[in-house]
Amino acid sequence: MGEQTKYLLDESRIPKRWYNIQADLPKPLAPVLHPGTMKPVGPDDLAPLFPMALIMQEVTTEREIDIPEPVRDIYRLWRPSPLFRAHRLEKALGTPAKIFYKYEGVSPAGSHKPNTAVAQAFYNREAGIKRLSTETGAGQWGSSLAFAGALFGIDVTVFQVRVSYDQKPYRRALMESYGARCLPSPSTETDYGRSVLAKSPDHPGSLGIAISEAVEVAAKNDDTKYALGSVLNHVLLHQTVVGLEAMEQLKMADAWPDVIVGCTGGGSNFAGITFPFIGDGLRGGAKPRIVAVEPAACPSLTRGKFAYDFGDTGHMTPLAKMHTLGSTFTPPGFHAGGLRYHGMAPLVSHLKELNLIEAVAYHQKECFAAGIQFARSEGILPAPEANHAVKGAIEEALRCKREGRSETILFNLCGHGHFDMAAYMAYSAGTLTDQSYSEQELAMALAGLPSVPEPA
Amino acid sequence: MGEQTKYLLDESRIPKRWYNIQADLPKPLAPVLHPGTMKPVGPDDLAPLFPMALIMQEVTTEREIDIPEPVRDIYRLWRPSPLFRAHRLEKALGTPAKIFYKYEGVSPAGSHKPNTAVAQAFYNREAGIKRLSTETGAGQWGSSLAFAGALFGIDVTVFQVRVSYDQKPYRRALMESYGARCLPSPSTETDYGRSVLAKSPDHPGSLGIAISEAVEVAAKNDDTKYALGSVLNHVLLHQTVVGLEAMEQLKMADAWPDVIVGCTGGGSNFAGITFPFIGDGLRGGAKPRIVAVEPAACPSLTRGKFAYDFGDTGHMTPLAKMHTLGSTFTPPGFHAGGLRYHGMAPLVSHLKELNLIEAVAYHQKECFAAGIQFARSEGILPAPEANHAVKGAIEEALRCKREGRSETILFNLCGHGHFDMAAYMAYSAGTLTDQSYSEQELAMALAGLPSVPEPA
Repeated sequence: MGEQTKYLLDESRIPKRWYNIQADLPKPLAPVLHPGTMKPVGPDDLAPLFPMALIMQEVTTEREIDIPEPVRDIYRLWRPSPLFRAHRLEKALGTPAKIFYKYEGVSPAGSHKPNTAVAQAFYNREAGIKRLSTETGAGQWGSSLAFAGALFGIDVTVFQVRVSYDQKPYRRALMESYGARCLPSPSTETDYGRSVLAKSPDHPGSLGIAISEAVEVAAKNDDTKYALGSVLNHVLLHQTVVGLEAMEQLKMADAWPDVIVGCTGGGSNFAGITFPFIGDGLRGGAKPRIVAVEPAACPSLTRGKFAYDFGDTGHMTPLAKMHTLGSTFTPPGFHAGGLRYHGMAPLVSHLKELNLIEAVAYHQKECFAAGIQFARSEGILPAPEANHAVKGAIEEALRCKREGRSETILFNLCGHGHFDMAAYMAYSAGTLTDQSYSEQELAMALAGLPSVPEPA
Repeated sequence: MGEQTKYLLDESRIPKRWYNIQADLPKPLAPVLHPGTMKPVGPDDLAPLFPMALIMQEVTTEREIDIPEPVRDIYRLWRPSPLFRAHRLEKALGTPAKIFYKYEGVSPAGSHKPNTAVAQAFYNREAGIKRLSTETGAGQWGSSLAFAGALFGIDVTVFQVRVSYDQKPYRRALMESYGARCLPSPSTETDYGRSVLAKSPDHPGSLGIAISEAVEVAAKNDDTKYALGSVLNHVLLHQTVVGLEAMEQLKMADAWPDVIVGCTGGGSNFAGITFPFIGDGLRGGAKPRIVAVEPAACPSLTRGKFAYDFGDTGHMTPLAKMHTLGSTFTPPGFHAGGLRYHGMAPLVSHLKELNLIEAVAYHQKECFAAGIQFARSEGILPAPEANHAVKGAIEEALRCKREGRSETILFNLCGHGHFDMAAYMAYSAGTLTDQSYSEQELAMALAGLPSVPEPA
């Protein structure tokens, strides 16, 4: 055995079922509330936005959900993804820890996002839907849904946060190459977008605004549904293929994690790698430590409030109980665009409240330094989002070194950085700064959380 | 079996030996000549530029060359690469042909180039070399050598064609992320670069000039060797892992190609996919048609002369017999930067003269159209270079449709297009044009070929 060890599964071992952590929760999720009535929403309330199959996945407590064969069929384009032992990084760090990483950058969009994009496009096509609307920040999600739409013959409209639309034209070009339509948000295409532009014609946009626009388009058009790239239970469910494969691959390596590290924005890549292991622990198996790494400039898990909040800025979505910085909070424009969201997936938030996971926040410069160290030892340049997971894993490995422990560390390298070279250029040039929010803005955003009566 | 079929090999089946087509040639290659003496060069003439192991690979007629275990070890990061059956593309074309493609975009640099970069870095490290100099156009090769240098602890200096250095900073950022030093060529760092700048301070550079600079640095510094990303026999040799794997994978699919298509710039990716099959044919096996696809704006195989020429513009390299447009020919600035070279690998040229391969040239717009069609049906967006192979394969599939033949077509998808989104943007915007050279410039460049006495 040399320095490079890759654990590959035969494609027949792409998981046949997603894992639903709702089956194993010691306490159920708080219900999602209708913002008008403050009563739990039912499937019919969500029907304008999602096909019924996805709505049922949102609420089911069945432990295993069959992955439809046409979805597995497209997964074969890049799944099973490789699991690597990071021998060279271990050596560079001088750590006795064993570091394993799952690599999702091999997908056609370069990230983990197609795992759910393909599933969502499939269920929408099955329901006869011809059009999907969605939002995107830097564009990882938008390009993934564009890819999935192309393969299932669904027209995709993407509202891209204007500052990214203007500054990062390359992911837009990828969306358009797949045939999707991409609009800068706020746009003149929706009532909400027009209302924002009326007040602020040069508004740079935000994910919360783009979500409002995409939801509005779906709500107003019978032939259009909405798709979200993270946060929701069914999205996290679809990502569990990552952790389920990793379990099989670790068995091949005769290893099991003591610590699992994932980066968190909306929570889906983190859920993908960790939920199968957390569920195994809840059912009596080993209980690895689970570490969520978030950007210090958008710290929903470490600085947010666990409370009911809107998923969007225009307040068109239902209310979900989650760690939130407030739906009016605008994260600074750091480079890990996929982590710039005011809220956190209700499932991830719930696990945090149950003390089943830990959370830590890092600034972007230290994360880029970790990414560069990873690239020079392991050969893969991570996306800025993934750099947070790399940083978290390196910190755990250095702790093992200090403590003289040879723990096994697993992390998810959720995407490559080939679309993010401008950020690396800024880092190399020394012009990258550790941005922060104002405490006053955070306090105001938190003060504006909707008031929800305590359940009876 | 669904629409998506991927043929994966276990990593134990990464080839253990490269295939050397020089063993099976019906007629040997013309010798490489020293431009001063016009006599064949010997190993000692090349020793300032390359370590002896690579020089021996350049000239050996042994059929199989062992791949060193440390090289296979790093190959495991992405090899064996997948072979796909393009069911969805076949359906979109309505062709009875079976289309298979080998996908090299899964490497950390996103292309096939690391196959030889890793090998070259290894042999240089074994020879105690601490520094490598090289040239790059768009940057695929430079970033691949930077990656390999990082893993073997070798400092890499890359002379990047100035127009690419200025216009495409992202690949430069990738090189720098791997720790390489990247300079715009012509540079002030070499005598040749300074001489070019003295005459033409705003010179946009060319691959031929950048090669001269990189060669000069290696020739003048004892601790520095030179590395080339294509053209040379040993580079083509290293790429044969692609075709060797494809052979195993096609056996899994119970298929064998009637036609193999590859794009050609310097010739290495084409050689990688085709040479093992050509050799098999030369030894009595099946003889698939072999189609080289080149850009109409730089048509060395279809419009060039088979003659002795320099590999660089500064005339520092030995003379090789090859299809050439003349070493002073400057190809127009089309987007497939990896195909912008005045010459063609001597081995590929030799096979063309022996009528063992065909060649065809396409313009870039039709190649981009093919790439978009491929992305929307198969899900992977190809690099502009790879679009030429896609175009060639689609043309073969449409011929099969016209002729009612269900032939098997194999092509090499040598890289993804994630670094080339500016070109796709131009294509979508309709601003991409089919550039051409002037017939007068070509005639002048050909008239300037060195005069070499006929061998006795």
